[in-house]
Amino acid sequence: MPRTNVNRPDEPAYAGLATFAKLPLVLDAEGLRGADVAIVGAPTDELVSYRPGARFGPRAIRASDPIAWSPPSMPNMDVGVDPFEVLTVLDHGDVPPTPGYPHVTHDAIRRTVAGICAAGAVPIVLGGDHSIAHPDVGAVADHVAPAPVGLIHFDAHADDAYEEPRLSHGTPLRLLVEEGAVRGEHVVQIGLRGYWPPPSDFAWARAQGFRWHLMDEIHERGLGPVLDDALAGIAEVPHVFLSVDVDVCDPAFAPGTGTPEPGGLTARELLRAVRRIATEVPLAGMEVVEVSPPYDHADVTALLAHRLVLEALSGMALRRLGREPQPERSG
Amino acid sequence: MPRTNVNRPDEPAYAGLATFAKLPLVLDAEGLRGADVAIVGAPTDELVSYRPGARFGPRAIRASDPIAWSPPSMPNMDVGVDPFEVLTVLDHGDVPPTPGYPHVTHDAIRRTVAGICAAGAVPIVLGGDHSIAHPDVGAVADHVAPAPVGLIHFDAHADDAYEEPRLSHGTPLRLLVEEGAVRGEHVVQIGLRGYWPPPSDFAWARAQGFRWHLMDEIHERGLGPVLDDALAGIAEVPHVFLSVDVDVCDPAFAPGTGTPEPGGLTARELLRAVRRIATEVPLAGMEVVEVSPPYDHADVTALLAHRLVLEALSGMALRRLGREPQPERSG
Amino acid sequence: MPRTNVNRPDEPAYAGLATFAKLPLVLDAEGLRGADVAIVGAPTDELVSYRPGARFGPRAIRASDPIAWSPPSMPNMDVGVDPFEVLTVLDHGDVPPTPGYPHVTHDAIRRTVAGICAAGAVPIVLGGDHSIAHPDVGAVADHVAPAPVGLIHFDAHADDAYEEPRLSHGTPLRLLVEEGAVRGEHVVQIGLRGYWPPPSDFAWARAQGFRWHLMDEIHERGLGPVLDDALAGIAEVPHVFLSVDVDVCDPAFAPGTGTPEPGGLTARELLRAVRRIATEVPLAGMEVVEVSPPYDHADVTALLAHRLVLEALSGMALRRLGREPQPERSG
Amino acid sequence: MPRTNVNRPDEPAYAGLATFAKLPLVLDAEGLRGADVAIVGAPTDELVSYRPGARFGPRAIRASDPIAWSPPSMPNMDVGVDPFEVLTVLDHGDVPPTPGYPHVTHDAIRRTVAGICAAGAVPIVLGGDHSIAHPDVGAVADHVAPAPVGLIHFDAHADDAYEEPRLSHGTPLRLLVEEGAVRGEHVVQIGLRGYWPPPSDFAWARAQGFRWHLMDEIHERGLGPVLDDALAGIAEVPHVFLSVDVDVCDPAFAPGTGTPEPGGLTARELLRAVRRIATEVPLAGMEVVEVSPPYDHADVTALLAHRLVLEALSGMALRRLGREPQPERSG
Amino acid sequence: MPRTNVNRPDEPAYAGLATFAKLPLVLDAEGLRGADVAIVGAPTDELVSYRPGARFGPRAIRASDPIAWSPPSMPNMDVGVDPFEVLTVLDHGDVPPTPGYPHVTHDAIRRTVAGICAAGAVPIVLGGDHSIAHPDVGAVADHVAPAPVGLIHFDAHADDAYEEPRLSHGTPLRLLVEEGAVRGEHVVQIGLRGYWPPPSDFAWARAQGFRWHLMDEIHERGLGPVLDDALAGIAEVPHVFLSVDVDVCDPAFAPGTGTPEPGGLTARELLRAVRRIATEVPLAGMEVVEVSPPYDHADVTALLAHRLVLEALSGMALRRLGREPQPERSG
Amino acid sequence: MPRTNVNRPDEPAYAGLATFAKLPLVLDAEGLRGADVAIVGAPTDELVSYRPGARFGPRAIRASDPIAWSPPSMPNMDVGVDPFEVLTVLDHGDVPPTPGYPHVTHDAIRRTVAGICAAGAVPIVLGGDHSIAHPDVGAVADHVAPAPVGLIHFDAHADDAYEEPRLSHGTPLRLLVEEGAVRGEHVVQIGLRGYWPPPSDFAWARAQGFRWHLMDEIHERGLGPVLDDALAGIAEVPHVFLSVDVDVCDPAFAPGTGTPEPGGLTARELLRAVRRIATEVPLAGMEVVEVSPPYDHADVTALLAHRLVLEALSGMALRRLGREPQPERSG
Repeated sequence: MPRTNVNRPDEPAYAGLATFAKLPLVLDAEGLRGADVAIVGAPTDELVSYRPGARFGPRAIRASDPIAWSPPSMPNMDVGVDPFEVLTVLDHGDVPPTPGYPHVTHDAIRRTVAGICAAGAVPIVLGGDHSIAHPDVGAVADHVAPAPVGLIHFDAHADDAYEEPRLSHGTPLRLLVEEGAVRGEHVVQIGLRGYWPPPSDFAWARAQGFRWHLMDEIHERGLGPVLDDALAGIAEVPHVFLSVDVDVCDPAFAPGTGTPEPGGLTARELLRAVRRIATEVPLAGMEVVEVSPPYDHADVTALLAHRLVLEALSGMALRRLGREPQPERSG
Repeated sequence: MPRTNVNRPDEPAYAGLATFAKLPLVLDAEGLRGADVAIVGAPTDELVSYRPGARFGPRAIRASDPIAWSPPSMPNMDVGVDPFEVLTVLDHGDVPPTPGYPHVTHDAIRRTVAGICAAGAVPIVLGGDHSIAHPDVGAVADHVAPAPVGLIHFDAHADDAYEEPRLSHGTPLRLLVEEGAVRGEHVVQIGLRGYWPPPSDFAWARAQGFRWHLMDEIHERGLGPVLDDALAGIAEVPHVFLSVDVDVCDPAFAPGTGTPEPGGLTARELLRAVRRIATEVPLAGMEVVEVSPPYDHADVTALLAHRLVLEALSGMALRRLGREPQPERSG
Repeated sequence: MPRTNVNRPDEPAYAGLATFAKLPLVLDAEGLRGADVAIVGAPTDELVSYRPGARFGPRAIRASDPIAWSPPSMPNMDVGVDPFEVLTVLDHGDVPPTPGYPHVTHDAIRRTVAGICAAGAVPIVLGGDHSIAHPDVGAVADHVAPAPVGLIHFDAHADDAYEEPRLSHGTPLRLLVEEGAVRGEHVVQIGLRGYWPPPSDFAWARAQGFRWHLMDEIHERGLGPVLDDALAGIAEVPHVFLSVDVDVCDPAFAPGTGTPEPGGLTARELLRAVRRIATEVPLAGMEVVEVSPPYDHADVTALLAHRLVLEALSGMALRRLGREPQPERSG
Repeated sequence: MPRTNVNRPDEPAYAGLATFAKLPLVLDAEGLRGADVAIVGAPTDELVSYRPGARFGPRAIRASDPIAWSPPSMPNMDVGVDPFEVLTVLDHGDVPPTPGYPHVTHDAIRRTVAGICAAGAVPIVLGGDHSIAHPDVGAVADHVAPAPVGLIHFDAHADDAYEEPRLSHGTPLRLLVEEGAVRGEHVVQIGLRGYWPPPSDFAWARAQGFRWHLMDEIHERGLGPVLDDALAGIAEVPHVFLSVDVDVCDPAFAPGTGTPEPGGLTARELLRAVRRIATEVPLAGMEVVEVSPPYDHADVTALLAHRLVLEALSGMALRRLGREPQPERSG
Repeated sequence: MPRTNVNRPDEPAYAGLATFAKLPLVLDAEGLRGADVAIVGAPTDELVSYRPGARFGPRAIRASDPIAWSPPSMPNMDVGVDPFEVLTVLDHGDVPPTPGYPHVTHDAIRRTVAGICAAGAVPIVLGGDHSIAHPDVGAVADHVAPAPVGLIHFDAHADDAYEEPRLSHGTPLRLLVEEGAVRGEHVVQIGLRGYWPPPSDFAWARAQGFRWHLMDEIHERGLGPVLDDALAGIAEVPHVFLSVDVDVCDPAFAPGTGTPEPGGLTARELLRAVRRIATEVPLAGMEVVEVSPPYDHADVTALLAHRLVLEALSGMALRRLGREPQPERSG
Repeated sequence: MPRTNVNRPDEPAYAGLATFAKLPLVLDAEGLRGADVAIVGAPTDELVSYRPGARFGPRAIRASDPIAWSPPSMPNMDVGVDPFEVLTVLDHGDVPPTPGYPHVTHDAIRRTVAGICAAGAVPIVLGGDHSIAHPDVGAVADHVAPAPVGLIHFDAHADDAYEEPRLSHGTPLRLLVEEGAVRGEHVVQIGLRGYWPPPSDFAWARAQGFRWHLMDEIHERGLGPVLDDALAGIAEVPHVFLSVDVDVCDPAFAPGTGTPEPGGLTARELLRAVRRIATEVPLAGMEVVEVSPPYDHADVTALLAHRLVLEALSGMALRRLGREPQPERSG
């Protein structure tokens, strides 16, 4: 398959249509057969509790990339692997949302992600608000069932316990657990901080076996050791979904998001964590959510999300190759 | 041909790839055969004298549209015609620019526009800075030669007289006239104001037979009567190119541009003027230039450019139908 | 009642809590008894088709006012009336929305507006997106029934004809007419332009007896004569609701909105039209909708909305006094 | 005197230090001898009632100009005169303000403007907030005394009646009149609108003989006829100061200001009015105030202020030449 | 006392008036009796040396909070304490400033803070520029006299040594020390860096017994050990005032401030330091100053200030309870 | 020489013309004789591959400084040295660029920097895009020849290997090496990360003897140890050029740049590294490039660039004095 199909060869980054990394666009799920990864947007934000705008996330993430991607090989220099050489990655466009009807949109997301899985590809979903975890993790869980799916969840917010009448949407993890899609002991949350949610939600999560790591712990111990623990807990799970809410980063690094919480991760920490996870863990799916372009500046949040996907792809490629990182070193 | 080919049906405006009005993308010039109009971006800005950024213009113009375009027919309600029903309009993507090498980019623009013409379609070029007038008007002039091409030029600046060593790029009109592509008496400029260019340039233009209408005249007489005069002067020209520099509008309406000049047209005036011209005059080509997204706010300039193209298409459709406007009227 | 109750006397505009014009805050509907007008926010935006953000509209509109309002009397200098001297106006806070559940929010809007009406006050609703017209016009219609309510609707978009499954929210006018709350012949729409909605919607509206005035007509004839016609058609209706979508203005004047459409009214035109309507017509309710602060700049859209309410209040005060405007004139 | 002294010849607008129009910088008042006009900044904003930021106005106005000014002659094309050929105009830098001590700053402004007058030049002051009218108009009045100075004042706000303890600064006109620097019957205010100041202030102004023209009158009659009246009233005054508060324009044209008021003049109207005044009236001084760059976008307000100065200079040049405008006309 | 009195129950964060954390508003000082903490805004910025705008700080800080605060208990998850359960915290509105008269405003600040102290509550003051330290620390010092008050001061700038005629305002610490309100040996400054003030000011401070810790030391040693030293020096002081100038953070974390200085603390560091101080030290007052919303982006600076107050409250609550932090831990 | 010559004494930072740190402006190269350092802008951006705007960099960097610089001595408090007391530093204005003709501009840069060197001063060049390294490093290399010049290069991108037809401009290092101006083994690059350039470029660099340090290594080892290694490799080189591309910092710290890459240095790290280098290494020249103001926010990137120059000057001053840093310490 050619490197691109809706862009002209050698176009600089600012020219032509913005597919993800100028990858080929394949809207038909059948066309994904043989692909390793399919990237799809889920442009929806009707279920946020504070600042909307994430519906413009997928388009902004794709358009934020300054790289032309024209040379035959452009490895991630930290690891010496060009993910697009190792993996066949396609852009599957956006799930068509129905504005104002998030439940309808969620059904479409679930169907679309299920289609990606059925085609044998790993879905990487560009949000959209975090409610999409319900349909997208759910679809992946369905696909790998009866094998369990683990969930590594980077977020400032535990994100799991709205009250009525909000049961159905602000509660992706709760819903996933209640529906049996994910088992509580296979969930680990990283980066939580602040004042939300209330203890009753933590109590529920604790009862389900969730594990989590507060930002405070990361600040004390460093993200590396915390990640050791986090990954140890799901070492035996055969399929893992990686959910990254960009608000896990400090607003300095991710201002363009819906519910910012100061005191978060740096981009440097998160990028490496995502790559490490993708290298060490069998990813069955990924989402990067809560990029809200109306609140972004100079595309810094959108570009961070873009790079998080690239780091995940680099890790997946390394894992596929089964080799150690080979950084680009001088003599 | 389907209404779209790289978007999913019924996608809202914010979802999916942003072709112009979600039109089908056809990168291959051969695929344009049978089309009436091809829209193409020319993302280049190396030749500006002040604020760059217009290289991001084509992408921003396409992405600014709030309309889903999904119903079978969506007429311009002022005239009662859906231009996409009357005309076959395709998105031809962007001319692939070579950053830092505007001459190379200009050659590519000329080839691409020539290809559109050769396929029988009218090119509408989304700039990019105004230097692209040289290759795009030039290509159209070549195509219609030996018949002459008229040039209606909306701009705050006469834009025709850089000195050496800038002869080759800041002087699209001068170059076009000197090369014989356009004859001076077929040029009319509308909206000029301010302090630039100096009188020597106007003297040159006068000697060539250029006609122009200062903003001051428009303020006194109104744009309608001025347009009457402007069009009268090219009534016999069989092919006309319409060049719209968005800086002809006041910065209130078009802040996102490279060389703003206060005191310009309103959007209301310019939109109607463009539609009228496209209705009354045989358009052989069009460009909308100098949209500079880094200086835009809330997409107002990009969207204005988008609507200018739609108004031109509406006018072309009316002209094709040969009928009077039929506004959507209540009882 | 004191001029204020949650602000300190003589606070400048930037100090203290931002009630509307530093009016007293009265959250309890009973406390509205005796008031002439109650201003209430409806912070919701889940039902927009393009850019969200209007949920931040009410707060932004209130905070945009540069005036301290401390002197005993501050008349509108065009008419010589201080609306707050003539009318008792209170700030009723915001309808508490339920994020993600616009239907629930709409029920709350309807109850709240009904409460205002029941207390004998005229509701002025600060949106929020335009979907709130269904509950707020509906509540006013219920209140005045069996007398009919007329609807004067400033908007770039006719805004009345989504297809399934969107029947319930993008169709405030359709719903209001179908439910019998408003009769089609009592509806007049002003400022429509562009490409939306499609003709089938206009056909439906025509069948109901709607009248409308395209922006094109206003550009040709001027807003004054058009308004003569618009008001003539509802001269006999005993109660009128005034719905102002700020996108009726050109994006230069109202960039902070969800679905901008270039070529609209100026602020100068709209402010005077609103005052005139409130002077000549018996207003039973008003809404100013679609202010989207994330897309605003320097509060220009929010402040325009604020002034539209003040002009309406000025007109209502003039009408109450039954006297001609007495502009502040020099000798 | 050379065209510039702190810039390199042929620098484009974005290079080098930003003096006004790349004019020579002359900090020493003695160096102004022989000049016709001296432009000086008054960067102060401690006395505003709402949004500060105007202290950055002078720098932003100077830096907003997209023109290189390198050719030997660059006439205003509306009138056919290059003001810099006719008049010797110098940039006198900024009055050094004392942050937090506006009275000290005002003293410095008065001394500086007096120095300009003493050198025989007409001062054009770039604000800064409007309080600077007290020292700058005062200095001009002192200079021309015992001849009177007229005051043409464009503003949304009458700007003349703070109560205690604010007598000394928000009341430039009141202070000027009370001190005898300006006589009330020589003041005319244009563009007033909205809700401020209260009637007591208008009563005071009326008693002094002030004349004013509300925006409402301008909307009805047009600015031309209003200006006829305004100028008629000071036809006999031998020296006139022109004070332009950019908030007289609608916020669409001048968002970057401290106390915006929707419904104002267009840039097109104001630019022509300023040029006409400078042509028809003997200007003894001018100020352009209330440009607040933190609230500006894409420099549109700063550039408008810049062009207002250029139009005034063009008018002054025409008046000096004693000839009719000779617009740059095509054949 | 109810959780709120000017908001409706269960309002999301974006609805209703923005008191701090939707706390009850109590404007009358008598009403503060029994409260532990009163939060008050001091919206003033006339005394800044560079970028103004901090007058809009209090409103922006209050409005920046994304949390609805509706559940009965919402503990800080790092420590397991909901400060609003342990402490009675009220919003005391804003000190009414007198624009242009900072001395008058300062008197009002001093009176208001004195009133809070007299009512038995700890004042937390939202700035406003840093000059407010003079009246607010002064009022607290008066209240605890003859016991001394210590001062922990986070800032990029030592902030204590303007020359004449600026003695009275840019010198809060100098004035406080000279007036005897604070003793030099009870002052510790943290985060100083850059080029200001000059050595003479440091010499003066050294002579008074000030201690300080440059950012360079923090970069080398870490903030924890530095804080150990800083706190050791005031271990015996019975009352401590915590002054936080947000410019102590790097501009990445706090762009919306008046005199940014690159190279500062991260939000992560500062949030924890503030909580620790409030836990370990007897806070008698606090201020968060120099939030300048016109220069902020996506509210990141305002929200940081908001969270700094919450962390202080959390620490105070922990100290009140006399117990160790109990982080929300998974199983 | 006076501290300033185009500013008035005691001007605050926001007043007057913005030379660098209000240093004297000396446009004539002869006037630089006796100076230790000359700061010059190179406002050009035609050769960027993604976001332009760096042509506005020099002006923005100069204007970003909040400090008045009026006291006689304002040392860097980390080291106890006022660089302007130790070194004679002048502002040499901007190289006059020729818009659209970067080769012409590069020639002018080379001539201007050569002139600075010839006058005996060290050039510090404010970019402008990174292509200026070719002429400015080249001029310095010519000046010190036949002695070699080392190159310390902070950047996210290795920046050295465009293909044809881009050989001449995107390849400053390649050109410098190929021309013999710099020897590969004297080049060390710090902060590289991401996906660009491709391995062939690294292979070329490796073959030349370049050394580099990926951001990944810095994240693991810390910048101090990495810098030890970097400096060790050029310990014997008698002249060193320091090239700082601000995109070496994370976009949180430097959003206003052309090709951002998340995951970079903090400002804290980079400021100290630059000072250390200037202290330990014999700097023969420096450039700070790729500040793109249209993408900056609240001047944070421009100010960072400004402070990087100041830290370099502080280091150079320390080195000149030959003494240890003497931080401003409390008692």
